[in-house]
Amino acid sequence: MEVLPDALVRVIKSFRRLPGIGEKTATRLALHILRRPHAEAHELARDLDELHSLIRLCSICFAFSEEDPCRICSDTRRDDSMLCVVEGSGDLMAIEKTGAFKGRYHILHGVLSPMDGIGPAEIKVEALIRRLNKGTIKEVLIATSSTVPGEATASYLLERLKNRVIVSRLACGIPLGMDIKYADEHSLARSIESRKINQP
Amino acid sequence: MEVLPDALVRVIKSFRRLPGIGEKTATRLALHILRRPHAEAHELARDLDELHSLIRLCSICFAFSEEDPCRICSDTRRDDSMLCVVEGSGDLMAIEKTGAFKGRYHILHGVLSPMDGIGPAEIKVEALIRRLNKGTIKEVLIATSSTVPGEATASYLLERLKNRVIVSRLACGIPLGMDIKYADEHSLARSIESRKINQP
Repeated sequence: MEVLPDALVRVIKSFRRLPGIGEKTATRLALHILRRPHAEAHELARDLDELHSLIRLCSICFAFSEEDPCRICSDTRRDDSMLCVVEGSGDLMAIEKTGAFKGRYHILHGVLSPMDGIGPAEIKVEALIRRLNKGTIKEVLIATSSTVPGEATASYLLERLKNRVIVSRLACGIPLGMDIKYADEHSLARSIESRKINQP
Repeated sequence: MEVLPDALVRVIKSFRRLPGIGEKTATRLALHILRRPHAEAHELARDLDELHSLIRLCSICFAFSEEDPCRICSDTRRDDSMLCVVEGSGDLMAIEKTGAFKGRYHILHGVLSPMDGIGPAEIKVEALIRRLNKGTIKEVLIATSSTVPGEATASYLLERLKNRVIVSRLACGIPLGMDIKYADEHSLARSIESRKINQP
């Protein structure tokens, strides 16, 4: 016999569909919401329901945005000659948070993954080529993750973009502030291969 | 400048209010929902909004329930002479999952915590005493957590219930299947103090 009320089970099941949420966490969240005032649940419900109707993709960079073009694409202070290519919105946000990049973005909305049937046509590659054809962009920084599909996507883009623009990649190595003896061996190996030589 | 659409920021903020959800997780969840079809967000929103209107507290045991009395209180196959006292609904669910308890429940909806202004009047203690006054219950199993406030609540209940019914506590010790050398010292100490002596 199910001891939980059906209405609670439905919320738990919906939460379980979210990434990284198992049964225990889903239950904890649902019970928390039930213990808090109805107004809080109502507010969350309203915000969730509005998400898709208020947000669209920017027609230039494909970022999630309420305006089109998005705030970054319409910001005149940004550098039109630099374009950073990322897999998804989370990556854009992480890069924006650093404040180290002042150019424009292009969001692929995925990575190449032939096993899952995701080829160049499934991600925003052709739109990227069309942007480059306008001739304003001088350098493309490929900022895909250093995972297997991320690297495969980067290699593919490198091939497509060569002889058109300057293509750069994010540097890999040991994290800043990390003790060398605790660094993972792959990052450490990469940091040795990519060592920077001081000019005398 | 905020690079995220306001509608997305609102959902992230609402998620951050939930226990154990930090900014990164909240952002990941919100972006996931945005990438999935609108129907899924709509369903979650509807379920969240219905939670409070469909679920009430059982007037006997104070479990969350769509019916009153709840499914456990109205189940005639359960043992009326045993009552298990728990802090919250999550504890009831954990105990039900074991299948080892066949009596009734009483949910305190909290633990004594004088520092936070939570005394006996703030949790369902008087209702528990009233249930016992009916004389059907022979044994009360106090199943509060073995945390400081959980133990304090158990001690208080022990005092209130003594000479009225048989009072029992959950056994503490090393978890089943755990290698002794990895057990935490407090659980191990408790398992020695509470050792079971084999009768020859």
